[in-house]
Amino acid sequence: MLNYQRYRRVPVVPYPERTWPDKQIEKAPVWCSVDLRDGNQALIEPMVVEEKIEMFNLLVKLGFKEIEVGFPSASQIEYDFLRKLVDENLIPDDVWIQVLVQCRDHLVQRTFESLKGVKNAIVHIYNSTSTLQREVVFKKGKEEIKEIALDGTRMVKKYAEDFEGNLRLEYSPESFTGTELDYALEVCEAVQKEWGATKEKPIIINLPATVEMTTPNVYADQIEWMNRHFSDRESVILSIHPHNDRGTGVAATELALLAGADRVEGTLFGNGERTGNLDILTVAYNMFSQGINPELNIENVTEIKEVYERCSKMDVPMRHPYAGKLVFTAFSGSHQDAINKGMQAMHEKNQEWWEVPYLPIDPSDIGREYEPIVRINSQSGKGGVAFVMDSEFGYKLPKRMHKEFADVIQKIAEEQGEVAPATIMEVFEKEYLRKKTPYEFIRAKAEDVAENETEVEVVFMAGEELKSAKAVGNGPLAALKKLMADETGMDFTLVDYSQHALSKGSEAKAAAYICLHDNRTGKETYGVGVSANITRAGFRAFFSAVDRLIEN
Amino acid sequence: MLNYQRYRRVPVVPYPERTWPDKQIEKAPVWCSVDLRDGNQALIEPMVVEEKIEMFNLLVKLGFKEIEVGFPSASQIEYDFLRKLVDENLIPDDVWIQVLVQCRDHLVQRTFESLKGVKNAIVHIYNSTSTLQREVVFKKGKEEIKEIALDGTRMVKKYAEDFEGNLRLEYSPESFTGTELDYALEVCEAVQKEWGATKEKPIIINLPATVEMTTPNVYADQIEWMNRHFSDRESVILSIHPHNDRGTGVAATELALLAGADRVEGTLFGNGERTGNLDILTVAYNMFSQGINPELNIENVTEIKEVYERCSKMDVPMRHPYAGKLVFTAFSGSHQDAINKGMQAMHEKNQEWWEVPYLPIDPSDIGREYEPIVRINSQSGKGGVAFVMDSEFGYKLPKRMHKEFADVIQKIAEEQGEVAPATIMEVFEKEYLRKKTPYEFIRAKAEDVAENETEVEVVFMAGEELKSAKAVGNGPLAALKKLMADETGMDFTLVDYSQHALSKGSEAKAAAYICLHDNRTGKETYGVGVSANITRAGFRAFFSAVDRLIEN
Repeated sequence: MLNYQRYRRVPVVPYPERTWPDKQIEKAPVWCSVDLRDGNQALIEPMVVEEKIEMFNLLVKLGFKEIEVGFPSASQIEYDFLRKLVDENLIPDDVWIQVLVQCRDHLVQRTFESLKGVKNAIVHIYNSTSTLQREVVFKKGKEEIKEIALDGTRMVKKYAEDFEGNLRLEYSPESFTGTELDYALEVCEAVQKEWGATKEKPIIINLPATVEMTTPNVYADQIEWMNRHFSDRESVILSIHPHNDRGTGVAATELALLAGADRVEGTLFGNGERTGNLDILTVAYNMFSQGINPELNIENVTEIKEVYERCSKMDVPMRHPYAGKLVFTAFSGSHQDAINKGMQAMHEKNQEWWEVPYLPIDPSDIGREYEPIVRINSQSGKGGVAFVMDSEFGYKLPKRMHKEFADVIQKIAEEQGEVAPATIMEVFEKEYLRKKTPYEFIRAKAEDVAENETEVEVVFMAGEELKSAKAVGNGPLAALKKLMADETGMDFTLVDYSQHALSKGSEAKAAAYICLHDNRTGKETYGVGVSANITRAGFRAFFSAVDRLIEN
Repeated sequence: MLNYQRYRRVPVVPYPERTWPDKQIEKAPVWCSVDLRDGNQALIEPMVVEEKIEMFNLLVKLGFKEIEVGFPSASQIEYDFLRKLVDENLIPDDVWIQVLVQCRDHLVQRTFESLKGVKNAIVHIYNSTSTLQREVVFKKGKEEIKEIALDGTRMVKKYAEDFEGNLRLEYSPESFTGTELDYALEVCEAVQKEWGATKEKPIIINLPATVEMTTPNVYADQIEWMNRHFSDRESVILSIHPHNDRGTGVAATELALLAGADRVEGTLFGNGERTGNLDILTVAYNMFSQGINPELNIENVTEIKEVYERCSKMDVPMRHPYAGKLVFTAFSGSHQDAINKGMQAMHEKNQEWWEVPYLPIDPSDIGREYEPIVRINSQSGKGGVAFVMDSEFGYKLPKRMHKEFADVIQKIAEEQGEVAPATIMEVFEKEYLRKKTPYEFIRAKAEDVAENETEVEVVFMAGEELKSAKAVGNGPLAALKKLMADETGMDFTLVDYSQHALSKGSEAKAAAYICLHDNRTGKETYGVGVSANITRAGFRAFFSAVDRLIEN
């Protein structure tokens, strides 16, 4: 029995004045990466110094201008890491280094020691303000809890006097989403005032969903309420720090941006305690997919993933948006077909902007590949097989041929599950290109003997026997048809014929497709031939079709 | 350079009349699992029959009453699987079997063949209605696309006449979120009318986010618009089928439930094409965490995960809500401390409902374990170490002792990263329980020689030498203190003393903690002793403290 009665609904304060549902995201927020602090502390194996440096360099390369690097007063390792960043000049001039610290004097002092020589620093103080934590963890009243925040602010002010770089204060009422809104505002405004925040010297007020407790619209309501109730909003940079306990961290962020947040704290791929922090990359790629500049250099998700996985020893899940291995793979036949047609339509219309069914973005725009888009399994349709033949091997099967070949692959898929592109090509070769029995084309001579009259002389194997024969028609194929009808005693109609240069592989070659209908039996099949000589390609295709008619 | 200019914003129709943001989720929807169809088709290795049967049985056990089992007209394997379910009587009487089929006569016919003997069947027809798919894939106008849906409805009606079980029609305007709302409504209402839906014989209208294209509030607007615009809403079961391309599938579902959806299609752990289908489990556990009965038997997520991973050969990611390996692990010291205090407070108040910081639910309510909650790394605080000692080994370290022992562990953590509970216990034994130099307690005799006067005779090792000594005090510990002061020449104060039965391990034993202050040097340390004899436990603790004072 599921113990659901043991839980109570989180109380929600109605806020019908909200305006965020009528808005759309228009621009990127200020991004702050907490990979090296919040993310790192939640790793089974925290990063060693070399990995931290690599991660830091990646974050800088991606364009993060605010990076929380640790909790230097609580950990010697994080202290040493920050000193290394300073001593080795690894911090670009336009990047702010953020450090977390509790509101305790000796810790704030040590934090400022760790920051010596940093050009732009954000000192991030916090204390927990929720009803639950006030009661069970701190056993303190509202005034005392507020006093902790004010004390912390005063400490930072004190040590800031001797700090030579640019300094910004960030204050987080931790467990904000479990805090009464008016009390959260009271504490934040007290800190804002104590700090002496102005439009020119704003304070970062960071409102974390320390544990995600409600549907994401409630977080958005809370953010909009705060956004609209600051009496001096201009001197506040409104920041959010969502978590993902209910699997809605990305949504909470997006709705909070609609609600007026200016700044977002999160990590690459959502690394962090429990279910993780907000995944900044997903929010950024979501913006990108809607034509909004995410203000991050994320054009190569494969590279980001590679560095992340190496440093964190975590895996990016297979279905993780944008980065997961399977995200640009279409298994369903109808999807493959629609993708195929969508790409074709874009191409035909010479359309600049991307619009393809089932592919919200062009994978190649973010360093992913087209190749794995289509995999063939027992569920794939004929379009999928044709797509693989085209995209992987350059064979543009005639539309009428799709079903015939897909049926062959379908049977294999039902036996063995998925069919890899290489297998599809093997089957194609066996079934079409290398058909040699009972008839095998060897060579031919074609001569125009009159206007609209061509004589062909064909050398071929019939079973074990090498034969030669001649026939005349209004072109080489018509002549060949007559010749093979005489040879086999069959009554052919040539239903379809096409030929194209093979765009991939040996460029000079052509592929020819011929569909023959056997008028006695009603059977119909394609044959395919390849040659650098276009007549020979056609002849081979003809022989391939004849062999298939006889065999099947 | 990131090609964001290549993308256009999805057009959004404003819907200020929305009411969903003022609502809260009150009850579970009808759940429909599409694991065996939508989920299975997206696997690298689709499930074999035995795995499908196991998955089907799991879904039944979890309480799903509607299960989509495949696309039997498109795949012989899925046809055979459905026949096996029927022939082997695996379908409970209260479970509806759902099958997907395109609106084509021979496929609908074959679908009905596959359903023979099924007691409750949902035939699910679909066609794509979006502007993009109409244009590039089907090259058909609105009327023609609507006609496909109506034709399909008529086909199902025709074959339904000879069907002996209960039959329900489900219609999906595929790519609904890319379809003009009024046109989607027009098609759905036409199908509803053609089917002859009534309150008693309702139709399932399923509105998929085939590709997630917008922030989740927009999907909710679309669902509420549809919900409120059906002229005959009573005969409609309003169903949703979200995907997760933007990482907001769970949020889209929750907001759509606020917007009036009755029914939700999804899969376990969100398996499905690309980024996957909606993860039904997360939505259900989210309800559970708010005291709402999710109407699914999901009290053992570990077992669900185990079957899912075996059948699908997919992994549930480490940070996946509720099920991921790391989800109930707290790394941060302040988190561990707060969890510890929260649990204590619940216990002290004898509180029935769950409320603990950083742990939205009690892991044991869903088949997860307490044990891995706390892992100690260089970021962990003293509370974390104490928690591990208590929860893993039953040692309730006195509060004053937390810092002393945590400092020892912190040093190891900074050297080697994470410290496993077993290592913490090893260190505890080495530092406290097995301290034997310079003094080792061997045995003692205690005798009350007067009211408030006890004489002890203690045999102990002092270095290599076996010694025996006597002393008198107002209790055994006071006597021992005197004895050891004489022996060592030190001037002790006994600062703290406590003892408790060891609740884990050998139950009969007691652990004693003694804190000695050396008045000459100001040093202070704890010692710990364990014994089935409570006097002996205290003596051992005393010797342990003396040894530590001398050594450190």
